Amino acid sequence: MKEFDVIERFFAQQSHQRKDVLLGIGDDCAVTSVPEGQNLATTTDTLIAGVHFPHDTPAEAIAHKALAVNLSDLAAMGAEPAWFSLALSLPEVDENWLEGFSRSLFDLSQYYSIQLIGGDTVQGPLSITVTAQGFIPQDQALRRSGASPGDLLYVTGNLGDAGAGLDISKGELSVSENCETYLVNRLNYPAPRLLAGTALRRIASSCIDISDGLAKDVMHILKQSDCGAKIFVEKLPLSIALKEAVDIEEAYRYALSSGDDYELLFTVSEEQKGNLDIALANANINATCIGQLNGVKQKLELRLNDEAYSLQRSGFEHFN
Amino acid sequence: MKEFDVIERFFAQQSHQRKDVLLGIGDDCAVTSVPEGQNLATTTDTLIAGVHFPHDTPAEAIAHKALAVNLSDLAAMGAEPAWFSLALSLPEVDENWLEGFSRSLFDLSQYYSIQLIGGDTVQGPLSITVTAQGFIPQDQALRRSGASPGDLLYVTGNLGDAGAGLDISKGELSVSENCETYLVNRLNYPAPRLLAGTALRRIASSCIDISDGLAKDVMHILKQSDCGAKIFVEKLPLSIALKEAVDIEEAYRYALSSGDDYELLFTVSEEQKGNLDIALANANINATCIGQLNGVKQKLELRLNDEAYSLQRSGFEHFN
Repeated sequence: MKEFDVIERFFAQQSHQRKDVLLGIGDDCAVTSVPEGQNLATTTDTLIAGVHFPHDTPAEAIAHKALAVNLSDLAAMGAEPAWFSLALSLPEVDENWLEGFSRSLFDLSQYYSIQLIGGDTVQGPLSITVTAQGFIPQDQALRRSGASPGDLLYVTGNLGDAGAGLDISKGELSVSENCETYLVNRLNYPAPRLLAGTALRRIASSCIDISDGLAKDVMHILKQSDCGAKIFVEKLPLSIALKEAVDIEEAYRYALSSGDDYELLFTVSEEQKGNLDIALANANINATCIGQLNGVKQKLELRLNDEAYSLQRSGFEHFN
Repeated sequence: MKEFDVIERFFAQQSHQRKDVLLGIGDDCAVTSVPEGQNLATTTDTLIAGVHFPHDTPAEAIAHKALAVNLSDLAAMGAEPAWFSLALSLPEVDENWLEGFSRSLFDLSQYYSIQLIGGDTVQGPLSITVTAQGFIPQDQALRRSGASPGDLLYVTGNLGDAGAGLDISKGELSVSENCETYLVNRLNYPAPRLLAGTALRRIASSCIDISDGLAKDVMHILKQSDCGAKIFVEKLPLSIALKEAVDIEEAYRYALSSGDDYELLFTVSEEQKGNLDIALANANINATCIGQLNGVKQKLELRLNDEAYSLQRSGFEHFN
């Protein structure tokens, strides 16, 4: 099967067509239009087999994750998804694999109304690069740099599940079958918090998505906002499955230091707390206050039941 | 050196700042704005070491080519460059390599006023994916699908140089030192025809850039415009270096079937020919009429001095 046939058969024939895509796959460029009054948010993430996911990960999970991690960046900015490009490097043309990959990709893209507008298919080691774009009303982007001392620190959903899921899939953690399914799914099928992101516009003072681990990602907010923070470890939101799978110390460690959760971490001023509660309730979003910002510049303090708490690992790092 | 340090040191500190980039590298997304009345053109291309360029290609040439092939797609659409994202997979952090790569990348991006707004740096086999975006005035995109029987077929610049350059760099062709430098540079440092692309707006009926070889890429126009074409092989524009390096039969073969030229191939109706001549002269652009379209659907006929001409190879193909 030739390159053009791969694109034609598996990627060009999608059902979902946005009105702002004037020209989709099949020319030198896609042509799109941005609504008046909206800015464009752009993000790029690459997943490489053996680095970002185990080699035996199902094609469906790889496709889901490749798009979801980019959607998560859009969510962290408060953006509404619009279009994405896909650069796919494949060692060979495996039609079953491509069938599962493209089905899963289009399931997720249709759910969030984001349209594939182009890309590139090349022969090489398995790797997937997605560039995703979305809209944000002018001046409403949720940056990492807007937090101030006194702001409350929140996180959506639960933390640590994906880290436990990774250890399970590597055979380093053994748990009950129910827990295993739940935790491995949290690793392989992360849910981008797009609804939360748009609900937080004009309410959150800063926002980031947790991809490398809470303790590490919070530092981006602290650095770019020039603040410090105290996190109350006993407040970290943990799933029932994680608490059942490991003891509480281990659960805290996963929640603080393991990556791939793709929850949103954000700050809110005391004055905006009322608006936050209303926005979260209206959109039916779970978020937990886990700490507070202070003026101790770029320092993170962990407390567990009023005592200092220390953490060894601090998140995933390339090129270490 | 850590991932964040690589980005910070080699890629975040660029001098070129566009006013429409509201937020550049360093947050979850970049935030940009599109001028009123303009559409957005988006293209993605991946280059993989050993597939798209020989393993011993200098870092400077890899960076140049990775961006230039995307700029060429923008040119083929009639777009004006605006922003790009870079996904870089590196086997290791080699500071010399990164120094050369980033310098060359920023030289080219500055020349064309296109700003790096984000990306991803990961550890893996050497590969580069660029997603580039540009602006096109509403309804002026140069598509592949607008050609009609009777339209004249043109190409910018010269053809076949890059193909000869590739054979030279693989040690399969030996030429004089002068010719070698010229031809290998045409392979490694392609010049995207952006000026020609914008000059052709509202004049060309269709346009494509030649990346896989003339004989192959013309088929995209014929297929999408549902036309046929006759190409007069003796009219193919050849550089002095190529004619000096190989005999004329071989030069025609390179011009017709080798890839990586990144010249623009376009069609113009007889009525627009006067406007074309003026536009080309005003912008000081070389373009040659090499044939004409006809109604013999999706068939390419090659003629050399009024006789039928046949070609064995038909361009680069993945997954063959």
